Amino acid sequence: MSTSAPGTPWQSRSDAGVPALDDGTLDRIHRWWRAANYLSVGQIYLLDNPLLREQLHKDHVKPRLLGHWGTTPGLNFLYAHLNRAIDERRQSTIYVTGPGHGGPGLVANTYLEGTYTETYHDITQDVAGLQRLFKQFSFPGGIPSHVAPETPGSIHEGGELGYALSHAYGAALDNPDLLVFAVVGDGEAETGPLATSWHANKFANPATDGVVLPVLHLNGYKIANPTVLARIGHDELESLMVGYGHTPHFFKAGFDDEAPESYHRRFAELLDDVLDEIAAIKAEAARVGADDVERPRWPMIVFEHPKGWTGPKQIDGKPTEGHWRSHQVPLASARDTDEHLKNLEDWLQSYAVDELFDESGRLHEDVAALAPEGHLRMGANPHTNGGLLRTPLRLPDFRDFAVEVDEEARGAAVAEATRVLGNWLAEVMRANPENFRIFGPDETASNRLGGVFDVTAKQWNAAYEPFDEADPMRKVGKVLEMLSEHQCQGWLEGYLLTGRHGMMSSYEAFIHIVDSMFNQHAKWLKVTNHIEWRRPISSLNYLLSSHVWRQDHNGFSHQDPGFIDHVVNKKADIIRVYLPPDANTLLSTWDHLLRTDQCVNVVVAGKQPGPTWLTMQEAIHHCTRGLGIWEWAGSEGSGSECDVVLACAGDVPTVEVMAAAQLLRENLPDLKVRVVNVVDLMRLQDEVEHPHGLSNRDFDTIFTPDKPVIFAYHGYPWLIHRLTYRRTGHENLHVRGYKEEGTTTTPFDMVMLNDLDRFHLVIDVIDRVPGLGSKAAGLRQRMQDKRFEARAWATTHGEDLPEVRDWVWADAGDTGTGQGGPNATQLTGGDND
Amino acid sequence: MSTSAPGTPWQSRSDAGVPALDDGTLDRIHRWWRAANYLSVGQIYLLDNPLLREQLHKDHVKPRLLGHWGTTPGLNFLYAHLNRAIDERRQSTIYVTGPGHGGPGLVANTYLEGTYTETYHDITQDVAGLQRLFKQFSFPGGIPSHVAPETPGSIHEGGELGYALSHAYGAALDNPDLLVFAVVGDGEAETGPLATSWHANKFANPATDGVVLPVLHLNGYKIANPTVLARIGHDELESLMVGYGHTPHFFKAGFDDEAPESYHRRFAELLDDVLDEIAAIKAEAARVGADDVERPRWPMIVFEHPKGWTGPKQIDGKPTEGHWRSHQVPLASARDTDEHLKNLEDWLQSYAVDELFDESGRLHEDVAALAPEGHLRMGANPHTNGGLLRTPLRLPDFRDFAVEVDEEARGAAVAEATRVLGNWLAEVMRANPENFRIFGPDETASNRLGGVFDVTAKQWNAAYEPFDEADPMRKVGKVLEMLSEHQCQGWLEGYLLTGRHGMMSSYEAFIHIVDSMFNQHAKWLKVTNHIEWRRPISSLNYLLSSHVWRQDHNGFSHQDPGFIDHVVNKKADIIRVYLPPDANTLLSTWDHLLRTDQCVNVVVAGKQPGPTWLTMQEAIHHCTRGLGIWEWAGSEGSGSECDVVLACAGDVPTVEVMAAAQLLRENLPDLKVRVVNVVDLMRLQDEVEHPHGLSNRDFDTIFTPDKPVIFAYHGYPWLIHRLTYRRTGHENLHVRGYKEEGTTTTPFDMVMLNDLDRFHLVIDVIDRVPGLGSKAAGLRQRMQDKRFEARAWATTHGEDLPEVRDWVWADAGDTGTGQGGPNATQLTGGDND
Repeated sequence: MSTSAPGTPWQSRSDAGVPALDDGTLDRIHRWWRAANYLSVGQIYLLDNPLLREQLHKDHVKPRLLGHWGTTPGLNFLYAHLNRAIDERRQSTIYVTGPGHGGPGLVANTYLEGTYTETYHDITQDVAGLQRLFKQFSFPGGIPSHVAPETPGSIHEGGELGYALSHAYGAALDNPDLLVFAVVGDGEAETGPLATSWHANKFANPATDGVVLPVLHLNGYKIANPTVLARIGHDELESLMVGYGHTPHFFKAGFDDEAPESYHRRFAELLDDVLDEIAAIKAEAARVGADDVERPRWPMIVFEHPKGWTGPKQIDGKPTEGHWRSHQVPLASARDTDEHLKNLEDWLQSYAVDELFDESGRLHEDVAALAPEGHLRMGANPHTNGGLLRTPLRLPDFRDFAVEVDEEARGAAVAEATRVLGNWLAEVMRANPENFRIFGPDETASNRLGGVFDVTAKQWNAAYEPFDEADPMRKVGKVLEMLSEHQCQGWLEGYLLTGRHGMMSSYEAFIHIVDSMFNQHAKWLKVTNHIEWRRPISSLNYLLSSHVWRQDHNGFSHQDPGFIDHVVNKKADIIRVYLPPDANTLLSTWDHLLRTDQCVNVVVAGKQPGPTWLTMQEAIHHCTRGLGIWEWAGSEGSGSECDVVLACAGDVPTVEVMAAAQLLRENLPDLKVRVVNVVDLMRLQDEVEHPHGLSNRDFDTIFTPDKPVIFAYHGYPWLIHRLTYRRTGHENLHVRGYKEEGTTTTPFDMVMLNDLDRFHLVIDVIDRVPGLGSKAAGLRQRMQDKRFEARAWATTHGEDLPEVRDWVWADAGDTGTGQGGPNATQLTGGDND
Repeated sequence: MSTSAPGTPWQSRSDAGVPALDDGTLDRIHRWWRAANYLSVGQIYLLDNPLLREQLHKDHVKPRLLGHWGTTPGLNFLYAHLNRAIDERRQSTIYVTGPGHGGPGLVANTYLEGTYTETYHDITQDVAGLQRLFKQFSFPGGIPSHVAPETPGSIHEGGELGYALSHAYGAALDNPDLLVFAVVGDGEAETGPLATSWHANKFANPATDGVVLPVLHLNGYKIANPTVLARIGHDELESLMVGYGHTPHFFKAGFDDEAPESYHRRFAELLDDVLDEIAAIKAEAARVGADDVERPRWPMIVFEHPKGWTGPKQIDGKPTEGHWRSHQVPLASARDTDEHLKNLEDWLQSYAVDELFDESGRLHEDVAALAPEGHLRMGANPHTNGGLLRTPLRLPDFRDFAVEVDEEARGAAVAEATRVLGNWLAEVMRANPENFRIFGPDETASNRLGGVFDVTAKQWNAAYEPFDEADPMRKVGKVLEMLSEHQCQGWLEGYLLTGRHGMMSSYEAFIHIVDSMFNQHAKWLKVTNHIEWRRPISSLNYLLSSHVWRQDHNGFSHQDPGFIDHVVNKKADIIRVYLPPDANTLLSTWDHLLRTDQCVNVVVAGKQPGPTWLTMQEAIHHCTRGLGIWEWAGSEGSGSECDVVLACAGDVPTVEVMAAAQLLRENLPDLKVRVVNVVDLMRLQDEVEHPHGLSNRDFDTIFTPDKPVIFAYHGYPWLIHRLTYRRTGHENLHVRGYKEEGTTTTPFDMVMLNDLDRFHLVIDVIDRVPGLGSKAAGLRQRMQDKRFEARAWATTHGEDLPEVRDWVWADAGDTGTGQGGPNATQLTGGDND
């Protein structure tokens, strides 16, 4: 399938030869709207008798009435009008439904335009198909009530509110011919993420990106309250939209006796004006070019109408249309009381269903003709099934970016892992200029990915100052940065859902800001894995840097490694967690995950200078296995059995384990220590629980079934216990990790505060391996003393004990006194911002 | 201590007899500002030589330079000016620092005004004290770099960005005499939570609440990018602020050669104008009264100046003042290069330190006199140490609200647990009209807490429509609802931090939206537990209703019980999790937790009609123990040993366990089943790990050391394994819980989808108790058949199998066939909105 959008983009009324609005067209719009409303009500209420060809009986009504009516008629109105405009201008358009509660409306419209039946063959265009369409809605074994993955044309479920505009802009990026019609609920507009996402228009380029047309759906009510934006008055609302960078176009209908022809004409004209305005902006952008175009004031629409428009005016004497009582199911007792049953029948009859569907139950042909054809139908636009358009990335050879490691002096090659990654990512961007983007909350440089700016820039379409020239900001660029994790995640999701590739970098602690967005995306992926027609989309990749162990500039408020815990609660087949210990394993990890689809990949990696442990070839093998014994680091010798396992996951824990292993080798030479490093955290889990899980046999071979295992882990210790819960030797596992122990500002002091330091790990070993004798007792005491010494040094000098700071790994046979260059714990300068 | 604010509120310039601005005052402001800037730079850079009385040497510079300069001078400027205004008008004022990175600034100002020394006696007002003040900043064993709990006058660390205005409004609620000066960083302004929090002004009442004066701190840059609001032009920014409901006052300085006297005069006049505007609004509100006052257009200030104002103009030829290069530590190599050391010395000298501090190192008296006195100093305002002002709630007797339970027919008393709670909460509000509030994202009614509206209303100060009269919306009320979990949580935090009480109700799934806010609040509590002068504040209480098991209207996107998992990663001494199984235990739980302080309490409870299992007296005992054996529900008899334990936590799991116990009793009468219910989840943990933890001995007595335990749990099963990890019998534990298994719309179908249903629990028992024989094998088959039957029924009829839907608990001796009224699984209508 072609990756170009269908149709002919950005024609003005006159370019496209749009005919004058005639009454016939307005009537067809009105009938489409009535049909969509009828089908929406039918889905919510009816089990049978879909076209009311017999008198409505309570057995025709569903026993449990579920769903949401209130927002639906407005969504249907917009869909009907868009059909006309798209058809006339041949404008490729997708429809993002912020108020996802209006699920029945989107199902109704895609049914009317034919895509629903093409997607689900049993939902036929006849009476029997209508009955199945109605029954399946919010029914066991049926479809959900939101604009879920099951709904053709959807990239946005709208279950959790707040992300309509971020998703819309993500879809529009690098799709210069695409119109994204984004309906924002006025309830949704109160959420934080939505409130800031209006500013996305300062990042989109009018020439190289598509256009988002926001519609503020002002129907006035939430569940049980009015909405804020409906109650601030016209002037403040207008100012707000102007302040967001838009030219608002106000439309209001349904509050008086205005005839349908009249308000349909008004809206059709308004829509034509808006689309012409967009066409003019696009033409101007094409004229002056992407690099010179000024940010326009984009049009948007304020669409005001009564909530539950065309529904019952009153129920039991209480206002319903135009009130929050329309939010959900206004006639919840339709099956129980004759009066409500009659109300429901009257309501359904008010749409005059016989004028809409023929004898067989098919939409009348003249109404059906309102819809555009083929891929111009919004339910069939290929951008909404991104996997159809997705092409794999062209990945340059990451081995060319390897840090050279001398096997005789491992760890001596110091690198900032994320900087090395950034240099490779630059080449990824060079090779894939159309479909790979990086998003981040002002942290791309802070996270040391600045290498990408050799190839691309930060896209920025707000104002420039003269000295910005020196910064990597340009009107077109593949990096987007705004100080909102919500916006970044929403952009990335929209970009991936429409068939592209990308990643997000963030501080580890603050990725919790998007916990709930992650939930929703993970659920979307989980569900689409079971929907045949949805093609796989690229994985969502997180790079979490500026992690918990190096918050020198910030301290306690910036320490939280719990996103991993949050992630592993989701279905095993879509989540992956990687903790590469050095630059080479980080490279290998990213090369792998940029090839995956339908996953969420979480990678935690530090940005500080640190030792590189493995040659590139070793790193590839290690990452392929996901975990493994580092024989060169241990002291067990070949073929023999070890006395204790020192395991690690994460860059800082790996350094401490290496230093502990060295201390043990030098001080207790008879003790056989095995060092195990874990990159792919899910390998710890049983193969039954996770597709990456290690077999029990392999697990026992590596970790032993019966020896003590001291595990130094990057995050909260419990997760390691959880992942290894069913392993043979889990009783022997002792995990050190982050303990929420307050703050300090030097790296080694920080690991000491959490008992994750080399000296404590040695003590852990001594305490758990039986029969070590008096030599070990002496070492234990020295380790305690070292800890006191290190603490005292830090609080006096404000930096770590030199012998720790300057420590370098020494292979067996080397001295171990720490001659050599800088390394992982020799850290100058600061950390995060 | 009195709960009234210090001072005399809301005097206009003329009321207060404010003298005309003279040059002496402006000079003192300027010198205060210079002193604060000097002390800020000193904290970031200097280890010694605090007053530059010898030439700056590299050993005087800290080895690790940490912290943030960029935002600090602006914060200092505002503090200096506020001192004058507060002193002249005697206006109780607190200072909320959105850009918490400016920590050194707030430390400097509270030091200058004397509160720092009063709080920390060793930080004296002399040279030695200055040296300690400088050294401790961002130093091991010292203080963090943000406006952390350690900082006097802070209720807002500002580590994570986005909550300055929500906190400010929370502090202002019900503090009618308090001015909350809230500085919003222009980086912070890009976050979603901040973007929506401007609308908090539609909720505050001008008569009964304090005043928030927002300052948009427009210094133009984030870490490595310009800010959006600094680059949208004056007109759009003005429109945006007007759209948010404010009258913006623009101030800009530092970009040209304007003399300090001149810009100080301009700002002082602007501040006087703004405070007069506020005084006029307050006077008008007092005149017309709280119930009739119209929402005013509150003033706000746009405060524009170069980032890092007064810092080095250029470093190494690169623009620094007025650029993102000022964000953190501009002279990071001050210890390493002579040139940078000289730059630093020049910078420090530019403040002319000898004009600021006397020989002994004390601030010159005339400058010191700029600060107001006593509690009017912003660092000493008692509202910022809320525990000082906090009075315990007057709690009405919850037993009066008990659901009556007949011990012979338990479960027959059907109640919506949260509705019962709501009726009691109404009395709590009646008894505590000044200091208890409920916050929620449009869900107070949906979560069945509507009873409170008999006593109070939803406070709403946006526009009214005539028919709003019928709704519980008023200009003054103790419930605040906005569709933003961020806003609600921020309000509640601000309210608690200033010494009041409250709770938040939310859908269980969407409380993840505030995961990161919870993190920050939990960290604040954890740290304050170790700060002697911080008095305890009320606990933050969550009611999570509309939970994972009853998302009939919504489905998969609304299902996530993982907030509990998130919470338990924080320090054990501040987190509590409760899962009351019925209305009476819910009442008892809330009575307890409204008495607690310094905790985060999470309560998960359904809002659907459900059985009430325990009499009030039993409920009290059960909640006091936190978990216990329900002897009447099991079949072990007295004194004997059980064969299997059926445990449960959560309302829906409890029903399924009860039904399973009954099935086992009726079908395998010889099997001795013990039923255990858990209310206080932390009881499962070891007493070493959590203060509520059960001793191992008690745990074994209840759960047995060796019998199979089938545990039906509300959330993700792993948490139960985690909590019981170190218990003797943990290998025998088999947990059923939520598995992310997609969606259905009938309650029993939902539990079946996750294998948590009664039939599956019976199968679990049969599979785990050895030697049950052929009778059990037959029962097992029947249970499988029942599950198929139930699934088929649901997908055909759209509701649950009648024998499940209508099931009622029958004591031993009763029939068990399910005659009786409605109960937990007989559920009509729908669920969440």
